[in-house]
Amino acid sequence: MRRIYLLYFSPERQYIRSLKNILGFLPGNINLYRLAFRHKSAANSVINGLKNSNERLEFLGDAVLGTIIADNLFKKFPYRDEGFLTEMRSKIVNRNFLNQLSRKIGLGDLIEFEGRTLNHYIKQSSLYGDAFEALIGAIYLDKGFKFTQSFIIGRIVKNHVDIDQLEKTETNFKSKLIEWCQRNGKEVLFEQIESAANEKGKLFSIKVFISSEEYGFGQDFTKKNAEKIAAEKACLALNI
Amino acid sequence: MRRIYLLYFSPERQYIRSLKNILGFLPGNINLYRLAFRHKSAANSVINGLKNSNERLEFLGDAVLGTIIADNLFKKFPYRDEGFLTEMRSKIVNRNFLNQLSRKIGLGDLIEFEGRTLNHYIKQSSLYGDAFEALIGAIYLDKGFKFTQSFIIGRIVKNHVDIDQLEKTETNFKSKLIEWCQRNGKEVLFEQIESAANEKGKLFSIKVFISSEEYGFGQDFTKKNAEKIAAEKACLALNI
Repeated sequence: MRRIYLLYFSPERQYIRSLKNILGFLPGNINLYRLAFRHKSAANSVINGLKNSNERLEFLGDAVLGTIIADNLFKKFPYRDEGFLTEMRSKIVNRNFLNQLSRKIGLGDLIEFEGRTLNHYIKQSSLYGDAFEALIGAIYLDKGFKFTQSFIIGRIVKNHVDIDQLEKTETNFKSKLIEWCQRNGKEVLFEQIESAANEKGKLFSIKVFISSEEYGFGQDFTKKNAEKIAAEKACLALNI
Repeated sequence: MRRIYLLYFSPERQYIRSLKNILGFLPGNINLYRLAFRHKSAANSVINGLKNSNERLEFLGDAVLGTIIADNLFKKFPYRDEGFLTEMRSKIVNRNFLNQLSRKIGLGDLIEFEGRTLNHYIKQSSLYGDAFEALIGAIYLDKGFKFTQSFIIGRIVKNHVDIDQLEKTETNFKSKLIEWCQRNGKEVLFEQIESAANEKGKLFSIKVFISSEEYGFGQDFTKKNAEKIAAEKACLALNI
């Protein structure tokens, strides 16, 4: 009965139908979903000093998503250690991947933002990935953990995440960083600073500078690894 | 029936009773709990290249704990922003706090470790906190999300976490780091490196050196904040 009302007679039926198409289920508390898609630039009221944007839901959804992916990988790879599980999870929940995923499942049309062109946000920020995480937070509050788990695994991971493929691709932070700098017209420099020797061997220290500003520091027993660590930190700092 | 067997007739009744006293419920799959309390130093078999220690469970439990605390804070503080929620959560799930908590609820007697004295591990590592997280992973696998949530909120947070008190205490990373260095006979040095000015004002760059090795880097618009960031990174790197 409620279903028929929401889909055919409610004043919000257009919005509810779009949501249902993307999610595959009928949302309960629609306000939660509206909030999940409201970028901070479009926050339109302040209650007790808090803006009504999706940032709180994003905080919650980020945790829930991380747990559900951790559980999935834990069970899928019973003989792999926690280092592998951590790395695999970060390949799935990283901003880049979530941004792509979010656009792929069509969240773009639902996101509210203001003040600049969408293009600005796509380039500069993680508007899409943030909205995806906030959506997970909304589903979790609306429907609970088990339901959210079925949604993420059954609808998202199954259709859009090729775990076996991800397993094969090692993230190359150095080339990722260099590409990003080239695209954004910035100069990148890996500088080896004094290296120390301890009982395990020679320790290399590498700093990465982007347009003369230090963005990362790495230390390891091979120069290559030290560079990788420094590049990874810079990627993290730059949100790439 | 099973309850009576486990508590009074099973060959493992002593162990099961200790567990029940600490947890407040009767565990289902006891092997999961044994694994949760097995530090990597005590891993006694290798299956398909994987040691049977608590590290995988710790990976899972860390995520589950983070989500349950996030949910709790989200609901407890409906008018606080995600920055506040993130900070509060990190006060609860940080290694130090979990180490203390773990000892307080009496996990110490259950943890298996080998090779060194317990004192060594207490000082050097996060054996207790890791075991606590692994325990959460075991409960989650054994009893599901809802049950784990009731356990963490009803038994742990309610009795052992004073959220209102935590809200008042700001973590002072600089003094924490200095205290740790004094205790461990290490020299700590905060060095201000060249500061740059941009459109927002003067930007301070601070590096923290511990016994001449760089451990953290911070950048902000006040010297105090840059020091705080650098100290926080060093605390993180040193696991303190």
